[in-house]
This record gives sequence, structure tokens and C-alpha cells, in this order.
Amino acid sequence: MTNIYAVILAAGQGTRMKSKLYKVLHPVCGKPMVEHVIDQISGLHTEQIVTIVGHGADKVKAQLGSRSAYALQAEQLGTAHAVIQAQSILEGKEGCTLIVCGDTPLIQTSTMEALVKHHEDTNAKATILTAYAERPDGYGRIIRGADNSVSRIVEHKDASPEERAVKEINTGTYCFDNKALFDALKKVSNDNVQGEYYLPDVIEILKAAGETVSAYQTESFDETLGVNDRVALSEAERLMRARINEQHMRAGVTIIDPQNTYIGPDVVIGSDTVVHPGTVLSGSTTIGEDCIIGPNSEINECEIGNRTFIRQSAAFDSQIGSDVNIGPFAHIRPQSNLADEVKIGNFVEVKKASFGKGSKASHLSYIGDAQVGSDVNIGCGTITVNYDGKNKFLTTIEDGAFIGCNSNLVAPVTVKKGAYVAAGSTITDEVPEESMAIARARQVNKENYVRKIFPKND
Amino acid sequence: MTNIYAVILAAGQGTRMKSKLYKVLHPVCGKPMVEHVIDQISGLHTEQIVTIVGHGADKVKAQLGSRSAYALQAEQLGTAHAVIQAQSILEGKEGCTLIVCGDTPLIQTSTMEALVKHHEDTNAKATILTAYAERPDGYGRIIRGADNSVSRIVEHKDASPEERAVKEINTGTYCFDNKALFDALKKVSNDNVQGEYYLPDVIEILKAAGETVSAYQTESFDETLGVNDRVALSEAERLMRARINEQHMRAGVTIIDPQNTYIGPDVVIGSDTVVHPGTVLSGSTTIGEDCIIGPNSEINECEIGNRTFIRQSAAFDSQIGSDVNIGPFAHIRPQSNLADEVKIGNFVEVKKASFGKGSKASHLSYIGDAQVGSDVNIGCGTITVNYDGKNKFLTTIEDGAFIGCNSNLVAPVTVKKGAYVAAGSTITDEVPEESMAIARARQVNKENYVRKIFPKND
Amino acid sequence: MTNIYAVILAAGQGTRMKSKLYKVLHPVCGKPMVEHVIDQISGLHTEQIVTIVGHGADKVKAQLGSRSAYALQAEQLGTAHAVIQAQSILEGKEGCTLIVCGDTPLIQTSTMEALVKHHEDTNAKATILTAYAERPDGYGRIIRGADNSVSRIVEHKDASPEERAVKEINTGTYCFDNKALFDALKKVSNDNVQGEYYLPDVIEILKAAGETVSAYQTESFDETLGVNDRVALSEAERLMRARINEQHMRAGVTIIDPQNTYIGPDVVIGSDTVVHPGTVLSGSTTIGEDCIIGPNSEINECEIGNRTFIRQSAAFDSQIGSDVNIGPFAHIRPQSNLADEVKIGNFVEVKKASFGKGSKASHLSYIGDAQVGSDVNIGCGTITVNYDGKNKFLTTIEDGAFIGCNSNLVAPVTVKKGAYVAAGSTITDEVPEESMAIARARQVNKENYVRKIFPKND
Repeated sequence: MTNIYAVILAAGQGTRMKSKLYKVLHPVCGKPMVEHVIDQISGLHTEQIVTIVGHGADKVKAQLGSRSAYALQAEQLGTAHAVIQAQSILEGKEGCTLIVCGDTPLIQTSTMEALVKHHEDTNAKATILTAYAERPDGYGRIIRGADNSVSRIVEHKDASPEERAVKEINTGTYCFDNKALFDALKKVSNDNVQGEYYLPDVIEILKAAGETVSAYQTESFDETLGVNDRVALSEAERLMRARINEQHMRAGVTIIDPQNTYIGPDVVIGSDTVVHPGTVLSGSTTIGEDCIIGPNSEINECEIGNRTFIRQSAAFDSQIGSDVNIGPFAHIRPQSNLADEVKIGNFVEVKKASFGKGSKASHLSYIGDAQVGSDVNIGCGTITVNYDGKNKFLTTIEDGAFIGCNSNLVAPVTVKKGAYVAAGSTITDEVPEESMAIARARQVNKENYVRKIFPKND
Repeated sequence: MTNIYAVILAAGQGTRMKSKLYKVLHPVCGKPMVEHVIDQISGLHTEQIVTIVGHGADKVKAQLGSRSAYALQAEQLGTAHAVIQAQSILEGKEGCTLIVCGDTPLIQTSTMEALVKHHEDTNAKATILTAYAERPDGYGRIIRGADNSVSRIVEHKDASPEERAVKEINTGTYCFDNKALFDALKKVSNDNVQGEYYLPDVIEILKAAGETVSAYQTESFDETLGVNDRVALSEAERLMRARINEQHMRAGVTIIDPQNTYIGPDVVIGSDTVVHPGTVLSGSTTIGEDCIIGPNSEINECEIGNRTFIRQSAAFDSQIGSDVNIGPFAHIRPQSNLADEVKIGNFVEVKKASFGKGSKASHLSYIGDAQVGSDVNIGCGTITVNYDGKNKFLTTIEDGAFIGCNSNLVAPVTVKKGAYVAAGSTITDEVPEESMAIARARQVNKENYVRKIFPKND
Repeated sequence: MTNIYAVILAAGQGTRMKSKLYKVLHPVCGKPMVEHVIDQISGLHTEQIVTIVGHGADKVKAQLGSRSAYALQAEQLGTAHAVIQAQSILEGKEGCTLIVCGDTPLIQTSTMEALVKHHEDTNAKATILTAYAERPDGYGRIIRGADNSVSRIVEHKDASPEERAVKEINTGTYCFDNKALFDALKKVSNDNVQGEYYLPDVIEILKAAGETVSAYQTESFDETLGVNDRVALSEAERLMRARINEQHMRAGVTIIDPQNTYIGPDVVIGSDTVVHPGTVLSGSTTIGEDCIIGPNSEINECEIGNRTFIRQSAAFDSQIGSDVNIGPFAHIRPQSNLADEVKIGNFVEVKKASFGKGSKASHLSYIGDAQVGSDVNIGCGTITVNYDGKNKFLTTIEDGAFIGCNSNLVAPVTVKKGAYVAAGSTITDEVPEESMAIARARQVNKENYVRKIFPKND
């Protein structure tokens, strides 16, 4: 196979986004558009990727890092001008060069592969990725000749009525013979109303030189969607969401309502897991088999075992075992580690804490900066007092301990194995093994007190 | 009217579901597909229903119980082979036999009724349920003769270009003269590439014998959707959801966003109730009139009165009265019983507890295993300490009692009528009527203590 | 420009709504339908608006107040009869009169402006707002003459096959020359099957008098949707939601899923704010720039600064500053005021409380009827005990104070500047500046107690 190079156009301003954030960095399903593009290009095993940066250059570079070389387009003088910036990196290389816009997040490896293959099969100097558009208004039309090769691209505004009736449109993605591309680019002029250098002019130049230009029509118009404003951004999000969710469903995940389930591109889910509506799964979250997730749960960067149930809850950057039961209305904060068979019930917050096998915090508790052993029962209203206003301290609760309701564990403190803390106690000192700690006042009943303070005529 | 028998085909493996769960048991809107089918068939007042079981036979039988007779298809050798398994039960019966796939959860009684009526009106030996498909690819086409009766069914792969242009398709649901069916089934051969016995061959056999075969075309293609993978499962769920929600809306329920509201088929809702988005209502939940439910609430198996408001909360297996106010972020667990005018506020969990009229637990409380009288005010942070690590005990709070904030009621314990528990108390003994119980330490102020422990230069 | 008058038809019963609530008062995106109509009419700078009321007259008047004059249609005898009720107010006025149904909530100012302009440009006595309907069944068809003016309106039931093929339909919105309207209305008869006076008869009367009737066809069929049942109501809601969300997106707001985001018509959102799914924003809520709102948050009547994050929470009638972090699972109740950099964490309820800059209540607390200074740290489980069963009292926490976990602050009470409350304390008296208050029992450990109460053989 020939060498493949790729140029990603990522220098445009994106004015219609009305954003301080640079256009190609706007996320789609949680990942910046340009990163979707580079992810898909990477599937092609290219020799080199060059990203043309301009507005927000530093941030785009920071996002993509070493996955791409960069060429700066200091002034935005058109798409041909953008590609010329890659000249010092790519000129003279043998092979073909893909040109892809950084704002087409839906394009897929398989489509670009087919484009390159068509390019090679037709011995073309340039091959245009085209699509059939039911409503082609605004797009450049592909005018094909008798031999089915491309005669020219005609912009909508320049098209005759017959040409406007053509529904095959230029998607803005191209495959060029690399040398032919850079030779032709030198001849592109900016003799037009906008005074810009346009990439489609290269096609005209190659045709004038008697070269073959072909077109590969993808079946998926959606894949070529370019994002220029936030309405298109939400449309790209919808299409990407549908694509991701369909992949999970085909792999054996039940998604009750794929339109209302938000799964990032890097999430892994085991078969027979059911995802209920209103659920957001993001980052590199991994979920095992036979889990029930949602409704209305938000999970980011978690690793979750099998048969775990997370309902109406939020979990972030944590390890969660198998047969764990979380929620409703629980919050697992980063750096937590829940072993198998743990239960975290309603209105419980866990932060930077580990729970051993079978331990439970079923209600209204805050367990932060803590090591909880196995088979521990943490009563309702238990609070690890981990912060004194200046520093944070560790709470240790050993295996089999029982923490009574509404207790404070003032860290640093340890409740040893099998110990018992009486309800309502504030524990400041270590509780020895199998001991009971109690720290509360005795009950006193003041008879008829209520009538005194609230006389009946009140 | 003639006798009606029904055969449900429910033996196929469902490989494309990629599931440990047997295909027809996958739920749609919370109810297994095959149960939707049998529910709708039951509306026809059939003489007998026979379900053909194979993979997962025991689980299908356990699901449907005595609603159906069963015939085992030990090996899956085709749809005709499946129906033959019902021979010992149905052969020789006078009447017509419906054959319905267990994976078509959307089929409705009215459609099957119309099919049977058409069958009788046309004096046919077989009547095929057909539908108009905008995209008929993959379906068997219905080829009608001059008299509008069916000449034959032609499978997509065997169809000529003219036949492929036909958009009337075989839905796989049939009505047969019962005797003609079993006679013809004996003649079906497996002389085909797959070596299977196909039910559509019965049509050919009847035609060859000079019998009339008719076709009844339903207007609703959607109703005939067969579920073979989880993408189709989610589509069936979407269509069923739309159907259920439309029925509620026509009956006077406002559903703000029917696409994002999940109501099970057995839920009952009174008029002028408003259901907000993200709400999941399931099981045999009953909701009265003028309620406001949601957003983002999950209610299963509850009975709810009128003018009750449940916002961003979860409620399960409980009785909830009229003019009750729940949420946001409350959790009503099973076996709870809330009388009229009760308020359960944010971050409150109620479990196996009864609340008398007008009682309130407005904030951050856990009331479990409790009997709460009427006009009780349960302060913020109140916890019924119902579990000592081994056993659960009952808390009783009588009418008009006032429980101060952050109190523990250590069960078994009773707070008598009109009694008052001071904030911060752990109550272990009975509080007499109209008494005040207090169990806390006196406040001591240590002057300038803060500077000592956190010197200014810190 | 000519004088413009408007008549809103709002007297019909709306039987198919099956509702105790009068039809035009049913809300769409949180605002009654008739109020959407009057909002849009108000954009035209009319001389006078007359609303024809009947069923529920008092409630409609209460809703619209002084924005309209009213005429009572005591009996509902048809649309012409309805307009006649405005005679005493409008007869003899120079100008044109718009007639709009109160159940068409999607109609827009710009469309009515174009209608009036067309009316004037064509020198017509009547101009009908029409639309192109893909499925015109049930609608009155517009029959145009050779000069493109309207010959007549023909009702669906009276239409010939050729007329039924016409896809231009009468939307029920009209612009009339005011004098011609009231002259013609006197000639409308009720000589028809229903015995009603129909407004389209005015068109016939004007034509018979040789007057010009024109038609203005709007591009947006959706805008003319009339709501007669709750299915249509949900459709109107969907279209209105899409319209509102598109406006926000075009203005620079990212809405991850516009289908599943519910924003009222009067909400204002700054650019680069991201709204996550399942979020409901209502009332006159204002949100600044660069905020992150949702998922699954409900916000009504709040004013929110910039860079504030509200996740899985509910907030009502409050002021929320910039760089505030709320949730998940927090509840901000009315009359709260959170200054910049405040943090309200999980399972925290704030009610009628102010928080100074940088103060935090991060976990499981109830802060009600309170004034919290700046840089205050409120520990987990803190409760302001604001209610004694009869009255509510104020808690004051001054700048820099630190409230230990699981504390009760029994109001009225003040914690002075820089003071420190020890965990587990019930504070009933003022805590002086820089002092530490403590009110708890000492811990006692009872060795081997656990074996005694739960012997090993248990």
C-alpha cells in the first residue's frame, strides 16, 4: 500500500460558534472534534499527520500533543493557503495526502480507507469524497464527465439551474497525490471576491493539466457533517451518540432509550448490562456484565465489576467491584475503592475511601479519607470528621466493626476489629477490638414540659 | 363466532441479542415481549393458547404460568416444525388458529381481531397478516392474484425485480383453519439449503390444493416489528412508549415530553396529573388526579392519591395519600404508608414506616421500621436507630410529637403523644406524653482557643 | 402604518383536553398558551387587543390582566359569533384587525407582521394566513383564483376530490379591514347543521360584495398548530422547546441534547454556558457565561453569575453568584443568596439563607433562616435548628467561623467571627470570637462489650 499522509485543517476561527473556545476544541460526546478526527485518521496507519493551526494554536497543540505535527497558518487566507503551510513538512513525499477538516467529527476510518482505495484504483491525482445530499443547497456540486470522473466542482452560487439539480456534493475531504498537490497549490490564485486561496481550485488546475480527478461517494451523508455553529454541534452530538449507542446495543447491552443515554466514545460495557435513561457515562469508564446503571446516573472514569447496580447516583474516578449496590442518590467521589458486595445507600458520600468486601454505608453518611475493612456496618448519619479547618486526617475502621447512627469519627482515629460505636457518639480516641465506645449524655425526661413552653392557648 | 386457538412461537434462540436472557423474555417497557403478546391474544377470548418453547423453556413457562399450554420444540428445525409441536394439543379442533411470534411485542388485539374477521369473511383456509413497508428489503413479499387473494409469498432472496418492487410484506402472523393447518404441516419438507421446515410453505401447499389464501393488510407496519437484536428492542420500546403515553394523554394526562417519559403498560394515571420529563413509572402503580410527578422521579408499584407532588425522588411498593409532598431527592422504600398531607422533604429516606395525616419529615432523616402518628414534626437529621447489628426494632412516635434536629431514636422506643425531644438527643427510653426528653451535654466556650490551635502565622 | 387591532379567540371549552383547566390556560414550556399568543401579538404594537372569553373567563382575565380588553361570549355559538362580541369595543375603528386563536401558541410576531404587510400590499379587505400542509386532511382548503387572490375557502367535508388535492390550508388566523369585518359579521347566518356562526363565512360575504380577499402563505406550518388535545399540547411543547433551544444555541450556548433540555421562554443564558441533559430551566431565570448546568438540574426563578456549576440539583427563587459550585444533589430553596465562590455540596439544603464569599457547606447539612459570613466552613451534618415547633428563628455565623461536623446550631444563636464549634456539639448560646465551643460527652470505651451483647454463638 502507498504511503498515506494527512492534513487536518484546524485553523479557522469558527465565528458562528460565538465562543471563547476555539472551534475544533468544542467537544462532541465529551471529546474535542479535532480529536475525533485524529482518532479516525490514526486508524489508517499514516506516515505523518500535519495539523494546520491558527486561532487557538497553542490549545489545539496541547490537546493533540505528539499525535500530530503542526504547521501554523498565521493569517486565514483560505483552505489552499492552509494546506500550503504544510509544504515544508510534506513536499516531495511519495504517496497520497488526505485533507480532512477538523470540524467534521463524524468521519470514520472506514470511509477514509475507501476513499484512498478508490484514489488508487482510479489512478487519480485527486479524489474527492462526495455524498448524496437530499437538500444540496449551499454545497459545491460534483459535475462528472462521461467516463464518470470529475469534470469540475461548481460552487452553489456559481451553479446553473441544471447544476443545482445535481445532488452529489463536495464534502470537503480529499485525497491527493502528494506531489501533484503541492505542485498545483503553487498555482492557486486569490483572484476572487474574498481574496482567498481555495482548495477546490487545485481540482481545476489538475484538470487543466490533463490529470484524472475522481470522486468517491460515501453512503453516509451524516458522516460528512461540518460543524459551524452550536446547532450543528448538537446535531453532531446526536449522530455520534446514536452511533456509539448502536455499537453497544449490537454488542449485547440493553439501552432502554438510546436517544436519552449519553455514552462517551471510550466507554466499555459488558453484555447484558442494562442502561436506563438519563444516564451519562464518560471518560474511560469500564462497566462489566449484568449491571444495571441508571436511571439518571452520571459516571466518569470508573472501573465497575459485574452485577453492580447504580441508580440515580454520581460516581467519579473510582474503582467499584462486583455485586455492589449504589444509590439512589449516592455520590462516589474520586479515589474511592469499593470491593465486591459493598452497599452505598441513599444520601451517602464516599470520598477517597476504600470499603472492604460486604461493607455497608446505607444511609445519610459521609465517609471521606477513610479505610473501611470488610463486613463493616456504618450506621445512618455517620460522619468521618476528616478536616479540622487546616488539615485532613485518616479514619480507619477495621473488619466487622459496627458504627452506630449519627456518630462522628474524629480523625485521625481507628475503630478496631469487631468494635462497636454507640449511636450518637463522637469518637476521638481509638476504639479497641470488640469494645464498645460510647460518648453521649444520659436521657432526662422533663414531665409536662411541653405545656409549660407552649401553653394550650398558644 | 368461531373458536379461536393461538400458537405463540417462542422457541428460537435469539443469538443476535447476545444475551444470557432468552429472547422472548427481554422486557419492553418493563414487561417481557412474550407477555405483551399473550396479553394481547388474551383479548381475543381464545379457546386455548399454546406456547412453543425451546431455549429457556423453563423460564418462559415460569413467566407465563397457567396462561398458556406449552409444547416443547427440543430442536429448532424451522417455524413449521415449531407449530407441529402443538399437534397433540390442537389437532382435530374445529376453528381457526392464530400463529404469532413471541418476539412481536407490539401486535394488538384489535389487529388480530380484524385478521380473524377477514379470515372468516373471505372463507379462507389461511390468512396472512401483511403490512405496507416503505422499505421492504429482506421481507417476504405478498403476491396477490387477480381476485385479490394471495397467489404466493416470495422470499426476498428468491424474488424477481418486479416482485421486489412489491411493498406488501409478510409479517409472520397468520390465521389458519386449524384442521387445514395441521393437514398441510404434514406435507412441509425440509428440502432447502438450511434443511428447515418453513411455515410459509403451508401457504404453497394450501394453494396447490386449490384452497383460498387471503391477506389482511394492517395499517400499522410498526405493530408487526419483530425483535431480533437490541437495536430493534430499543425501537420496540420507543414505539410501545409512544403508544402508552398517547393513551394517557388522550385520557387527560399532561406529559410534558412523551419521548422522555417512561410509563409501564399497567400504570394508571388520573386526569389533570402532569408528568414531567425523566420520570419512570412502572409496575402496577396507580396515580390519582391533579398530581405533579417528576422531573426525574422513579416510582414502582405505588398507589398514590390526588394532588400529590413527587419531585426528583424515588418511591417503591408503598401507599401514598393525597396532598402529599415528596422531594426533591427523597426515597420512599417498600412497605411505607404515607397518609394525606404528609411531607417528606429532601434527603429523607422512609422505609417500612407509616406516617399519619399531616406529619412531616422535611429534611435529612431516616425513618425506618416506624409508626409515626399524625401531626408529628420530625426535625432535620432525625434517625430511627432500628438496627443493632443483629436485629431490627420498631420506633413509635405518637400524634403531635416533635422530634428535635439531629436526634437518635434508639429502637425499640416510643415517643408518646405531644412529647418533645430536644435537638441533639439520643433517646433510648420512652418519652412520656407532653414531656420533653433531653440527652446532651452543656455547651462550654473556650475563649481564644482558636488562636492557640491555629496560630496566626499558620 | 395602519392601526392594528387584535382579537384573540379564547372562549371555546376544549372538551378534548379532558381537563378541569380551561384550554387556553394549559401551559406550553411553562407559559399558558394564550399568553404566548398575546406576547407575540404585543410585538406588533397594536392599538388594542380584545380577548374573547367564555369558559373560565375569570381565570383567563386573571392570567392576562391589563394586557388585553375582554369581551364575554356567554354562549359558544361559533367563531363569527365570538368576534361579534368585540363589536362594542372595535366597531368603527379605522385600521385592520387580526384574529388569532388562543390555542395557537407557536404563532410568531414576524409571521403576523408579514400577514399585515401582505394585507396592505394587496389592498385586501381580508387576508387569510395559510400554510402548505403535506397532509391537509381535515383542514379548510384555500381555492385561489386566476389573479392569485382567494376565491373561497372550502371545508374538507364539502370539498370535491380536486379541491381536496389542494395542500394550501386555512390556519384560522386572519387579518381584516376592521370596518369591513364588522359590516360582514352582521350578515353571517347560522343556517347550517350545527347552527353556528362561522368566521370563514365572512370571506364569502366579502367576495359576494366584490371585495378582494388575499392569502399570505407562511413557510412554517408548525407555527399554525392548534392545540385541541394533550397529544397536540405535547407536540406544541416539543416545537416550542426546539425553537427556544435553537435560539440559545445560535447565541452561543452549548446544549448537549436540545430534545432533552427544557428551557422556558423567558430564561436568559450567557455564551459558552453548557447545559447538560435532563435540565429544566424556568421562570425568569438568568444564567451568566461559562456556567455548567446539569445534568438533571431544575432551576426556577434564579439569577446566576458566571462560571457557576450546578449539577444534579434543584434551585428556586434565589441569587447565586459567580464561581459557585452546587451539587450533586443539593437543594437551594427560595430567598437564598449565595455570594461568589460559595460551595454547596451533596445533600445540602439551603433555605432563606445568605452565604458570604467563599463559604462552604459541602456535605449533608441544612442551613435555613441563616446569615453566613464569608470564608465560613460548615462541617458535614450541620443543622440550623430554626424551628421549635411554633416559631422560626435566625442563625448567624460570622466570617471565618468553622462549624464542626454533626453540630446543631439552636436558633436564635450567633457564632462570632473566627469561632470554632467542635464536632458533635449542640450550640444554644453565642460563641464568642475566636473561641471554641464544645458540647459533647467524653468517650468511654467498654472493653469486650461486643462479645457480651452478641455472644459468638449468635
